[in-house]
Order: sequence, then C-alpha cells, then structure tokens
Amino acid sequence: MSQPQASCPIGVFDSGVGGLTVVRALMDRLPFENIVYFGDTARVPYGVKSVSTIEHFTLQIVDFLQKQQVKMLIIACNTMAAVAAEKVREVSPLPVLDVIEAGARCAVQSTQSGGIGVIGTPTTINSNAYARAIHSLGQQYHVYSQACPLFVPLVEEGWLEHPVTRLTAEEYLKPVFVEQIDTLVLGCTHYPLLKPLLSDVAGPRLKLVDSAIAIADETAQLLQEQGLANPQRTMPDYRYFVTDVPLKFRSVGERFLGRNLGAIEQVSIDRL
Amino acid sequence: MSQPQASCPIGVFDSGVGGLTVVRALMDRLPFENIVYFGDTARVPYGVKSVSTIEHFTLQIVDFLQKQQVKMLIIACNTMAAVAAEKVREVSPLPVLDVIEAGARCAVQSTQSGGIGVIGTPTTINSNAYARAIHSLGQQYHVYSQACPLFVPLVEEGWLEHPVTRLTAEEYLKPVFVEQIDTLVLGCTHYPLLKPLLSDVAGPRLKLVDSAIAIADETAQLLQEQGLANPQRTMPDYRYFVTDVPLKFRSVGERFLGRNLGAIEQVSIDRL
Repeated sequence: MSQPQASCPIGVFDSGVGGLTVVRALMDRLPFENIVYFGDTARVPYGVKSVSTIEHFTLQIVDFLQKQQVKMLIIACNTMAAVAAEKVREVSPLPVLDVIEAGARCAVQSTQSGGIGVIGTPTTINSNAYARAIHSLGQQYHVYSQACPLFVPLVEEGWLEHPVTRLTAEEYLKPVFVEQIDTLVLGCTHYPLLKPLLSDVAGPRLKLVDSAIAIADETAQLLQEQGLANPQRTMPDYRYFVTDVPLKFRSVGERFLGRNLGAIEQVSIDRL
Repeated sequence: MSQPQASCPIGVFDSGVGGLTVVRALMDRLPFENIVYFGDTARVPYGVKSVSTIEHFTLQIVDFLQKQQVKMLIIACNTMAAVAAEKVREVSPLPVLDVIEAGARCAVQSTQSGGIGVIGTPTTINSNAYARAIHSLGQQYHVYSQACPLFVPLVEEGWLEHPVTRLTAEEYLKPVFVEQIDTLVLGCTHYPLLKPLLSDVAGPRLKLVDSAIAIADETAQLLQEQGLANPQRTMPDYRYFVTDVPLKFRSVGERFLGRNLGAIEQVSIDRL
C-alpha cells in the first residue's frame, strides 16, 4: 500500500450507529477533514459475540476502509477497541486511534484525586479494558467500573431527558457516587447523548469525560504531527457505509450526528 | 425422513433466550414431553436483519432440529414467525406451530368488544403480522398495535417489578388505554415475565394474552389429534442448544424458565 495522503479521508468504524458521536466530534474539531464511516449494522451488536468472531469482523472492516484509501483508522466501538485494537495495529500500516485509549488518557489528565469511574455496556466493563488502559498510564489510579445495560436502548428510543432515563441513571450511579472518584468516563459511544442528564444527576462533584471529544482532540494532534492534516479548505466529503438496510441507521443516526446524514451506501457482508 | 414418533422430542426455537418462556409453558402443560430447544445466541437479535437473512438462518435451525429427530416444530420467536413461518411450513414435513398464530387465535377467543391491542418489539409491530393473523380469523376485529422497544432490555436487566419498568409501561400503554380494546396480546416472548406488572398497570379493563400459554395449549391439542402425545410417564429429557458461549444464556435463561437449565450444548454456526 502506498503512503497515505493528507487529502485522504479519516476512516471511522463501529458495530452500528454509536460511532457517529465520534464523527460529530471530528466534524466540529476538524471541519475540513473528509470522513468515511463504516457501521456494521447487519451484525450489530458485537458485545455478545466471541473474541475470534469480533476480530474476524473487525479485520474485514479494516480491509474495506483501507480500500477506500483512508489515511488513518479510528476504532469508534468500545467492544472492538477492547477486543481487537491490538490486532488492527498489527495488520494495518496506518495510524490507529481507539476510543478506550483516548478516554483513558483524558481521564488521567482530568482526575485530581486519582479516583476514576467508568460506565459502559456489560461487555466493555467485563473486558476490563478501561482499567487496563488507565493503569498502563500509572498504577496509582483507582478505577471503579459500572455497567449500564439500559442506557443504549434508552438512547436509541430517544428518551434523552425522559423521567425513565433519569430514574435509571440515578439507580446505576448510586454505587458510583459512594466511591472516592472525581471523574467519570462515558465509556460507550451512545452515552454522549445523555451528557446533559448525566451532568445533572451527577452534579458538580464529577467531571464527565466524553471519549468522542477526547479522540477528536487526539486525531487533530496526530494529523498535525504526521503531516497528514488536510490542507484543503473546501467543503469536506462525508461517506457512510452500512451493512443492512439503512432505515433505522438514518433515523437514529441523525439524532447522534445532530445533522442530516446525506447519502448512505449499503455494503453486503458477503462482499467484505 | 421417516414418520415422527410419539416418543420424539418437541423442537422449540428462538433467536435467543426469549423462547424459554414457551418451554416453561410447555413443561407446565405437558410434563411428560421431551423438548429440544435451540437459541441462536451468536446471531441474536434477528429483528434488525433482512428478510432473506432471517429466512436463511431459520431454515438452518429447522434443518438442525430435524436432525435431532423432533416430532414437531414450534417457532417461539416473533420475528421468525412474522417473516419465515410460511417458508418453514413449505420445507418441513413436520407439524409447525408459531407464536403469532397462537396469540392471534387466543386473542380472538378472548375479546368481547372485538378490540384487540398488541404490544411487541418494533420489528414485530412493523411487520404487521399480528394484525394479519387476527384479520385472517375475521375482518370484524379492530387491532391496535404499540411497539415497546425497552421491555426486552428491561427484562434482560431483571427489573421485572422496578419503578423504571412501571414508569416505562405507563408511558407505552398510555395510547393503548384510549383505544376501545378489552384484550392485550403480549406479542414478544420476553413479555410474560412482565405479566404481574402489566396486569397491575392495565388494571381490570384488559385481559392479557400470553402467547406462551396459548401455544402450549395448541401443542397439547395438536399432539392429541395427531397421535403424537408421548405415552411414556418417565422424567422427560430437556436439551438446550445455543450458538454462542452460554454464560448469559444460563443466567438470563434460568429467570425465564423459573428453574435450573442443566446442561447447555454449544453448536458452532459454521456447523449449521
């Protein structure tokens, strides 16, 4: 493969729609970068699948994005980041960022007390990937993790400020509040949509770390350092690839992205 | 294929764990029947997949169960019943029952006013399969459908009597209550676990139809009519096959079944 060009797009991928919160943060932070998004909507959710299956699917997606001539890869899915990030770095010559490393680095910069809470899906929490990533930055941090299985369906239902969501958040965060933490990592790409409600429930005692914003900052820095920032100042090109009929992807995705999605292209999994 | 024997097991299948509510009803209604259950846990949920993919997976499962020498098939998954029941009846020489037909028949027997409500997952509701099944029994019925996307994750979280679940049920059922209905079909295999809460929220104005109990009754009748009821009065044999590591299947499944699951066998999807 030839050297990546600065004008090439950034490749972002996820098991479904959640990674669009990362795309949104990238659009805000880097308004002139082209982006190619891949959401494996036919095989979502990855959380329930075995490690070898997740690795296999992930490498198929990486291969697809490399054929789209992306200049770097962003793993916007916590499950893929937890399970297959190392594999991606092994096989791809491109720079690779993932949401877990970005979230961990940002949490470490944010905490004063050294106590960090992490909320995520059961798979992400059970993988212990955030705790590993945080401890690789320093053994002194105390990490407290809490799975919040209902947050994803609540976000997909669109109940972002609903009393049901508030009651659920209070229930999940109750054990988190008794821990000595000052920082809470939103360890799932769906959770940034709950930020207003979670800020309100958590109150001023906790700083919320949004991995989407963290990874957009890291992307900006990486592109600068490697001379890969797009010098063009024209309207960027955004392309979205999904593996199933894009009906739900569009309706839920526009909520995630905060704007219209434009054209969405469907790719058959048999062609991966 | 040779004629099915009365001593052969009943084959029950679902995309995941939900069909165990049907197994539970069968165990109660037909305590001497052997049962083979298949849950496609590696590929769950089916709701987001295309019709041709669902048909393909369904026929693989039917083939697997036929090799297990089952004497009849029960489609315990609303999505498969909505999308692939006809295909199953086309390819299999065995008697086939499905949850949608059973629920529709029971609703029609239950209603006095002719107004029937149906709650289910978005896929089931959007497929319009319950309305079609009810109208095939009589054009006079008025069917009102309501998708309840959060009920499945709430049941899987185990919040069967939780204030969050109650608030969610009140929200979903609000538009149902203003309709002129006297019967409410629980159109998803997860919902029987919410029956106490839903009865309480709905009050005496609505009769709840549990498809699991309806299909157990129909199974008893079918076995009797076709001379397929197991004459043996020994402890029956229950076998469970799943396609992914059965950890979550066991923990959630035992809640669905109301008893221990015993041995669970994992089948690779590559072997289907």
